[in-house]
Amino acid sequence: MATFDRADLLFQLFEVSDLGKLMNSASFAHIDRDVVEGVIDTASRLAASHFEPYARLGDENEPTYESGTVQMIPETGEAVRAFADAGFIAAPFGEEFGGPKLPETVVQALYFIFATANIAFQGYGMLTAAAARMLATFGDDDIKARYLSPMLEGRFLGTMCLSEPQAGSSLSDITTQARRREDGTYSISGRKMWISCGDHNISENIIHLVLAKLPDSPPGVKGISLFVVPKYRVDADGQIGVQNDVALAGLNHKMGYKATTNCALNFGENGDCIGYLIGKEHQGLRYMFQMMNEARIAVGVGATALGQCGFQASLAYARERPQGRHPDNKDATKPQVLLTDHADIRRLLLAQKAAVEGALALCLYCASLVDLAASTSEEDERHEAELLLEMLTPITKSWPSEFCLEANKHALQVLGGAGYTRDYPIERCYRDNRLNPIHEGTHGIQGLDFLGRKVLMQDSAGVKLLVERIRTDMAAANRTVSPDLIESLDEALERFEVVTRSLTEEVARDRRAGLANATLFLDFAGHLVLAWMHLRILRAAQEREARDGPSDFTTGKKQSATYFFKRELVRTKVWAETLLDNDLTAYEADAACL
Amino acid sequence: MATFDRADLLFQLFEVSDLGKLMNSASFAHIDRDVVEGVIDTASRLAASHFEPYARLGDENEPTYESGTVQMIPETGEAVRAFADAGFIAAPFGEEFGGPKLPETVVQALYFIFATANIAFQGYGMLTAAAARMLATFGDDDIKARYLSPMLEGRFLGTMCLSEPQAGSSLSDITTQARRREDGTYSISGRKMWISCGDHNISENIIHLVLAKLPDSPPGVKGISLFVVPKYRVDADGQIGVQNDVALAGLNHKMGYKATTNCALNFGENGDCIGYLIGKEHQGLRYMFQMMNEARIAVGVGATALGQCGFQASLAYARERPQGRHPDNKDATKPQVLLTDHADIRRLLLAQKAAVEGALALCLYCASLVDLAASTSEEDERHEAELLLEMLTPITKSWPSEFCLEANKHALQVLGGAGYTRDYPIERCYRDNRLNPIHEGTHGIQGLDFLGRKVLMQDSAGVKLLVERIRTDMAAANRTVSPDLIESLDEALERFEVVTRSLTEEVARDRRAGLANATLFLDFAGHLVLAWMHLRILRAAQEREARDGPSDFTTGKKQSATYFFKRELVRTKVWAETLLDNDLTAYEADAACL
Repeated sequence: MATFDRADLLFQLFEVSDLGKLMNSASFAHIDRDVVEGVIDTASRLAASHFEPYARLGDENEPTYESGTVQMIPETGEAVRAFADAGFIAAPFGEEFGGPKLPETVVQALYFIFATANIAFQGYGMLTAAAARMLATFGDDDIKARYLSPMLEGRFLGTMCLSEPQAGSSLSDITTQARRREDGTYSISGRKMWISCGDHNISENIIHLVLAKLPDSPPGVKGISLFVVPKYRVDADGQIGVQNDVALAGLNHKMGYKATTNCALNFGENGDCIGYLIGKEHQGLRYMFQMMNEARIAVGVGATALGQCGFQASLAYARERPQGRHPDNKDATKPQVLLTDHADIRRLLLAQKAAVEGALALCLYCASLVDLAASTSEEDERHEAELLLEMLTPITKSWPSEFCLEANKHALQVLGGAGYTRDYPIERCYRDNRLNPIHEGTHGIQGLDFLGRKVLMQDSAGVKLLVERIRTDMAAANRTVSPDLIESLDEALERFEVVTRSLTEEVARDRRAGLANATLFLDFAGHLVLAWMHLRILRAAQEREARDGPSDFTTGKKQSATYFFKRELVRTKVWAETLLDNDLTAYEADAACL
Repeated sequence: MATFDRADLLFQLFEVSDLGKLMNSASFAHIDRDVVEGVIDTASRLAASHFEPYARLGDENEPTYESGTVQMIPETGEAVRAFADAGFIAAPFGEEFGGPKLPETVVQALYFIFATANIAFQGYGMLTAAAARMLATFGDDDIKARYLSPMLEGRFLGTMCLSEPQAGSSLSDITTQARRREDGTYSISGRKMWISCGDHNISENIIHLVLAKLPDSPPGVKGISLFVVPKYRVDADGQIGVQNDVALAGLNHKMGYKATTNCALNFGENGDCIGYLIGKEHQGLRYMFQMMNEARIAVGVGATALGQCGFQASLAYARERPQGRHPDNKDATKPQVLLTDHADIRRLLLAQKAAVEGALALCLYCASLVDLAASTSEEDERHEAELLLEMLTPITKSWPSEFCLEANKHALQVLGGAGYTRDYPIERCYRDNRLNPIHEGTHGIQGLDFLGRKVLMQDSAGVKLLVERIRTDMAAANRTVSPDLIESLDEALERFEVVTRSLTEEVARDRRAGLANATLFLDFAGHLVLAWMHLRILRAAQEREARDGPSDFTTGKKQSATYFFKRELVRTKVWAETLLDNDLTAYEADAACL
């Protein structure tokens, strides 16, 4: 079964996103549409041969701890090796690392394809690419020499070790220690928790990027440094040596994402764990944030991919399954009608389609901002791309996580009892997707980041830029898109401005109370931004219609956008009321009375 | 860990619901508060000893097919036998069947207790009680003699066999055949699907209640008859005889509710399946609807119980787990604060508490209407109780299913990564609860039932009665409850009346289009009814305060009600707009363009 729609992905890349413009820049002069279609087709084939067929198997056979290591089904390793062999770990890297330097926009589209097929397998390659990028950016030559090539080849796989048992979301409270050794390396000791891909038997080595504190560090996040800690030590000439005192302390048994191992790890239980500093001491969190920002876009992509997988599966089912009759024609001697003939089933399908299409547009838009910031020679343009990216990152992480999970709930409902079984991928998508509002910063933490940091930064310059960009696209769409939709977006935008001013004042007056409804404000901003994305999709669809005439495809885009505006964007009316009141019911609630 | 709150359940039963009044009636003169507290404590002990400890085990060891039967972990059978031995299957039955004739209100409270501990184990006893009630009500003496006592003793367990592979929600399309045999029995042949408790190794016999059609039946639901079809035939003297040609065709592998087996069954593959008619031919659906209505309340109770289990687990965790600091005091040298100190965590807890308390009040209110209809000697009172019950049944089935599932989503979020693991019951509750919007009539079908049947019946007499009852309780609460809340309920009620009139006209004009948004209307009515339930809870809390002074408990009730009114009831504003427009975006969407 198709897990994604190729024509739609190409439309998103070349007609909705700014990839076309990016390919005109000097940085991406080596990329053209043929190149992109080529890698997409390679990814599709690989996803169909090595990922999708084993998604259920991986889910039903979660990793086990046996004879000293974590045992995976062999198909996991085969998929990850095929992914690496086809060059997908190295995809974003430049020639100096032997990579094709694909734009981030294309890389995220590739991740999307693999995640629709089997997100739990896809985690290994994606996480390794992210870790490798950290080493390439901040590591010294020795670190690069030992670890980078084997990671890009998929022989070594990477992890990020941030959380600890006593510090899940609160990085300032980590206690893992790094003591300087005489040879310039560090002795690492501490316990790390929730480590995806933290241990397994599918690669020659595992390269952990570990946050730790030096004994003389300042308290809080300013005292955090970043280290490479390999599972097996590696010689200067690349030979794998002895184990490095990194011990598996336990496997987490999760509701979903089962084929991505998730571990508790103990570093330096025997005082013999060596780490290698990345960059400078006390700069670890700053480096890690670069990786986290990319990881946050990738979470949005993964959530959207799971939404897409569920949508495709439920649409295919609904188009084939006869069930019941119309309420005005119950004649039992007539055949049953298809599920798609029922208005409420169409609602469940449209809701998914609108969520997934909007979310995908947002993810690719963010990725294109990464590309723009990296490729432009104009300082203003770079600054604006970075600023807008800062604003959109918490939304891109959170909105798909929350609302494509909801889409999976709808997909399951379309199939009824069948959706509740493992015979279809939907219940797995739903379980997998439930992780996304949690990892890489919970939904609540993204809300605090958005209102408490992003909205306020640079005297609200980010908010102004965001509003300006939306208005620019509204003006551009004005001639082609239905005035109703433009008007409701305009109203929502005004509501957003009013609410933002009000909350900014609240936060200035009382930071804690002013941030009490930050999560709701994040959802509000998310719905606004998603409506904007639908506007961009609509404009692209209209341009295509002007060129090729109307089609089911372009009609479909109008249907999703209309649904989103009429059924989702309207929710911002009530949210605005609550936010303008700055309703403090939860904030003031007495926890003893819960 | 406590899975429910005893003091709260007693408050709901004796101060919020009308159980006290019911116990004054002649039918329930044998019941007093001591009796009720006694059975609740017995249930609590049994739930703690035989249900809760095996919830994870049952989930991790789903039933398997081995050597001809379905194998369960032995703890399943032990729990069901203990449940039966303590008299819980017989709980609603009168003296003539050796039961204590507990009011339905108390019976549902007992189901609630067991379902909070282990809903998948609880299914067997509950379903058997429901099937036994059908036999007691509609079966002839011979059927009662052979099956009833062993079912009440838990030696035989019951099922309902309605759906078929080609007819999930559409009962008019079932094709299972029943041919009259000369001896007055029937020969059954056909395939049934989604049969909970359909096969297992934990009882001496399984008694299927099967919907089937006679060869000369009229088409559609009018041609349906109801049969007892035992797995093993039973002699007139109660001896178990040969197998009855009921074959297990397959096990469904579900996302949750795993310890409740769910099967495809083939009846009469070898032409040797005998069924015994219940009541009269062609009356099967009418009989079954009695059982379905009770089953629908039980679904609401189960969904609420899962919500409650998640709420208790997340509250306990949040009260003990330090994590992070307040946004206005990030000093890392100070200790972390508790999760309950964060406004957004309190929101996630309050949202659960408000959903679960309101849903429980609704379930018990419905059960008390069942009791009232069965016990009153006043014809008007009985008629009104039945009418109101008809109105509330689709809401009681659906609202907890949808919104206590949402509560479980929140519970998981409170724990973050830990909630995503099997170390806590929450991810299991979330998976279990996902079934509830599907079985016993999907959410969409409940919407059609509510708007297409219940709202319109008897010239909208049900709507009028519902509105009148809400207004009566508002008037009674007026002196004690905050005017703000009364006013917002009043506004919501007016919105509901306007929307109902508008939709009633739409349905009269074009039944199909008028019912297009029936699901949204059901949610709207559900939120209104839940606000009403919170009003009843509030009034009871105020009465308690007037008697005993304020307490954390009563403050807690005010917090939940305030949360529900301010954060949930407000949603009806936007829903009303959409419904008044009768937005047809989904209805008119072209399925080919999805």
